[in-house]
Amino acid sequence: MSYNLLKGKKGIIFGALDENSIAWKTAERAHEEGAEFVLTNAPIAMRMGTIKDLAAKTGSQIIPADATSMEDLENLVEKSMEILGGKIDFVLHSIGMSVNVRKGKLYTDPKYDFTTKGWDVSAVSFHKVMNVLYNKEAMSEWGSIVALTYMAAQRVFPDYNDMADNKAYLESIARSFGYFFGRDHKVRVNTISQSPTMTTAGSGVKGFSDFYSYSDTMSPLGNASSQACADYCVTLFSDLTRMVTMQNLLHDGGFSSMGMEPDVLSL
Amino acid sequence: MSYNLLKGKKGIIFGALDENSIAWKTAERAHEEGAEFVLTNAPIAMRMGTIKDLAAKTGSQIIPADATSMEDLENLVEKSMEILGGKIDFVLHSIGMSVNVRKGKLYTDPKYDFTTKGWDVSAVSFHKVMNVLYNKEAMSEWGSIVALTYMAAQRVFPDYNDMADNKAYLESIARSFGYFFGRDHKVRVNTISQSPTMTTAGSGVKGFSDFYSYSDTMSPLGNASSQACADYCVTLFSDLTRMVTMQNLLHDGGFSSMGMEPDVLSL
Amino acid sequence: MSYNLLKGKKGIIFGALDENSIAWKTAERAHEEGAEFVLTNAPIAMRMGTIKDLAAKTGSQIIPADATSMEDLENLVEKSMEILGGKIDFVLHSIGMSVNVRKGKLYTDPKYDFTTKGWDVSAVSFHKVMNVLYNKEAMSEWGSIVALTYMAAQRVFPDYNDMADNKAYLESIARSFGYFFGRDHKVRVNTISQSPTMTTAGSGVKGFSDFYSYSDTMSPLGNASSQACADYCVTLFSDLTRMVTMQNLLHDGGFSSMGMEPDVLSL
Amino acid sequence: MSYNLLKGKKGIIFGALDENSIAWKTAERAHEEGAEFVLTNAPIAMRMGTIKDLAAKTGSQIIPADATSMEDLENLVEKSMEILGGKIDFVLHSIGMSVNVRKGKLYTDPKYDFTTKGWDVSAVSFHKVMNVLYNKEAMSEWGSIVALTYMAAQRVFPDYNDMADNKAYLESIARSFGYFFGRDHKVRVNTISQSPTMTTAGSGVKGFSDFYSYSDTMSPLGNASSQACADYCVTLFSDLTRMVTMQNLLHDGGFSSMGMEPDVLSL
Repeated sequence: MSYNLLKGKKGIIFGALDENSIAWKTAERAHEEGAEFVLTNAPIAMRMGTIKDLAAKTGSQIIPADATSMEDLENLVEKSMEILGGKIDFVLHSIGMSVNVRKGKLYTDPKYDFTTKGWDVSAVSFHKVMNVLYNKEAMSEWGSIVALTYMAAQRVFPDYNDMADNKAYLESIARSFGYFFGRDHKVRVNTISQSPTMTTAGSGVKGFSDFYSYSDTMSPLGNASSQACADYCVTLFSDLTRMVTMQNLLHDGGFSSMGMEPDVLSL
Repeated sequence: MSYNLLKGKKGIIFGALDENSIAWKTAERAHEEGAEFVLTNAPIAMRMGTIKDLAAKTGSQIIPADATSMEDLENLVEKSMEILGGKIDFVLHSIGMSVNVRKGKLYTDPKYDFTTKGWDVSAVSFHKVMNVLYNKEAMSEWGSIVALTYMAAQRVFPDYNDMADNKAYLESIARSFGYFFGRDHKVRVNTISQSPTMTTAGSGVKGFSDFYSYSDTMSPLGNASSQACADYCVTLFSDLTRMVTMQNLLHDGGFSSMGMEPDVLSL
Repeated sequence: MSYNLLKGKKGIIFGALDENSIAWKTAERAHEEGAEFVLTNAPIAMRMGTIKDLAAKTGSQIIPADATSMEDLENLVEKSMEILGGKIDFVLHSIGMSVNVRKGKLYTDPKYDFTTKGWDVSAVSFHKVMNVLYNKEAMSEWGSIVALTYMAAQRVFPDYNDMADNKAYLESIARSFGYFFGRDHKVRVNTISQSPTMTTAGSGVKGFSDFYSYSDTMSPLGNASSQACADYCVTLFSDLTRMVTMQNLLHDGGFSSMGMEPDVLSL
Repeated sequence: MSYNLLKGKKGIIFGALDENSIAWKTAERAHEEGAEFVLTNAPIAMRMGTIKDLAAKTGSQIIPADATSMEDLENLVEKSMEILGGKIDFVLHSIGMSVNVRKGKLYTDPKYDFTTKGWDVSAVSFHKVMNVLYNKEAMSEWGSIVALTYMAAQRVFPDYNDMADNKAYLESIARSFGYFFGRDHKVRVNTISQSPTMTTAGSGVKGFSDFYSYSDTMSPLGNASSQACADYCVTLFSDLTRMVTMQNLLHDGGFSSMGMEPDVLSL
């Protein structure tokens, strides 16, 4: 399926780890829709993933970058503009990681160094990416920046731990930076709040399987897949959504608007 | 510009009055994107408008219908399926009218017959449209229903009068009916909360010009035009947004996320 | 328990049917806190209830009024000011009824006459009450008006039927009228969005018991009782909350901020 | 004015700097309402302030604590329980500071060390306070924890800089920790989102005076004063609001529910 929605558009895609990643699916779909882009991920994540296969499949180059390093990000943005031959039209930020979750710390008793590290990687990285893009004037007019988030930023999912707070911070950055990017460069910034997704990252969370089923049952259309999310990203990168900005867009099969679904009582 | 995003899709578009209407622009864009559709409006509105020009331009048929009449709506849906040769893929509801506003009544001292009439036309009509579509099983799986609304449903714009309450009711219908439509027919239902728009309807509101400028200044990207809204509707009717449902989607250049824009002090 | 929080304050309390009513508990608490007030209910509801016991207990007079009748409401407000000897400091609106629910109609296939009747009783009545109070200048400066609502206005609880839409309309009225009442008379208007409550009205809804347990389990503090709601109303009528206005205040033990509570899977 | 609403209650109040502070006013009101409490502030802030006068006036002891230091907070909580003779009933967190704002850094080009410091002081400190209270089981059942926040967490006020993101993180902590505190100890946690206030901290922000007037004009009841905020805090510490938890409570004269106030065009 291709509509040429992104024909001629240039992008940077963060966070494609393996074929379960939303970023991976988005890269595939963006390629089908005619976009050219650079793939990037943390050096350490790249060793674990198979991003080279994706690069080959989509004719993309890979530029490793630690998204918490301004130096790496400056290099990434400069190189991307060289490779792609101009300013950037779209960016996908799909980065998130809680050290407290990985280390099995409780929300009520974290190690604050871990809290800071997870916040820096999951949330501040989005600010740093936009900082570089904004100050280098690297975005085209009417460009589109999207970050992935989760509804734990608004409501409590106990096992989501400090990622809830990180996502709240991330969504706030989207609004705050979205103001300056919109006013000064006519660039839009939004977050997509996606259903729980069977990614390598997502499925590592404690109790994920129960949670996934609950969410699937609660959502009138079921959980949104990573494939569906990729389709949605394509619309947000396209020229058809130019006036949508500073929004948190729920892509969740209706979960967020549900108060109670009687069927969850039979789970 | 065309991406064939709606190729083969069949729709019903309510509320195209004249070329300033969002529904009019949406019909033009849907046509460009390959859709076939039926145009409908209230008999009385059609006499004032130039909907025939639109029908000619888009190769559409017109079926007059009073959207408060179940009988008219049943006729509309049945005829539309005959004309289009199958079930409906998308519906746009762009209907709104406050008799109290037209008659110059204050919000604090309305005529309640007018209140009821405006509520019936502006909000209950959306329920009736979906009632007919749902019970006739007239929507295709993964079909998309969109109604236009305004942010007065969440925040006070004093001159918007009882349309604020009507829009709140309309948005609630979108959630309530969206649940049943999603669960039972895999159809999504959303509202688009659009910037103030220079339509024939919109510009009739008292103080509209000041209000339009205020909103334009407050919004980092400026007010969204009816043309941009038509583009956005196209994405919501397409197969790329299948898991977005029961949402109120702000299409407003960022207005809704602004607390204060210093430039409004210079207006 | 009494703090004299409402000493010298005069009120009107709508909707005390029997001792399970939130309005009943609120009347008892307001009396303990030193308020004087008039009780009112629909003539038909009064025949079923035991409101006279409450009147005796709290030293109140009863003025029957159909809250959909401007004439009745005008009489109510005038008489109340006579009886209480001055302007009104607080009002509680606790009125709601869906004819469609009573008659077993589905949300997707209502009788629209019932829809209109339920909307008029449950939502427009609140507008009419404020209309009379506003235009008669019957409220004291820094007075407080509260209506009871439910979270179905924001999220879908399938059995709540068209009351969801009515509550959305009601909450919008609180904002819309709250603006004029605040600006012109320094009166605040808020809604309390209360947990499902074992009232005579509430418990009549289909599947109420399952729903009540679900909500109780989902809420970190459990469901809020009608007694707790009465306490909360007292704070909103007191002079300690003068700057809270046009808000929908969740009184729900935390339900509204929950995304998932693992314990519901064991229900 | 006193209602004995907090008679016998024990508290800890963070952030009373001088008599313009909301925390200062809250301490005065809590004292009038019969509470006993410990005052605390950062050692450096205490040197600048006149907190000793407040301590004398309210019969309180002062325990200096750096709210980013777990060690200091543990000492504070232990000593407070000793001094007050039992568990804590209420806590006020009124702490916020952006190094980037102080140093004149733009939101779009901060120093990230400053960002981290401001986040730690303004937001993580709230987590640390609750961490200590929770793990020491220092809160009484039905205790109440309140933090002050600002609406920049939801909407953009350009000069608010990174405090917007900090407040979003703070509000998320209130929900996340509120879940565990409610479920395990029946303690409620809320944030109050207060009007711009003429405090020593608030008035230091760039363009504060214009912003204050704008907000005052936009709010139907005008800006809420620090005195009114203190009153509101008292209600939230009292036994009359036990079931309100995990909420962000707007105390703003209606600002948050306004879309447009025509009078701002005349400012």
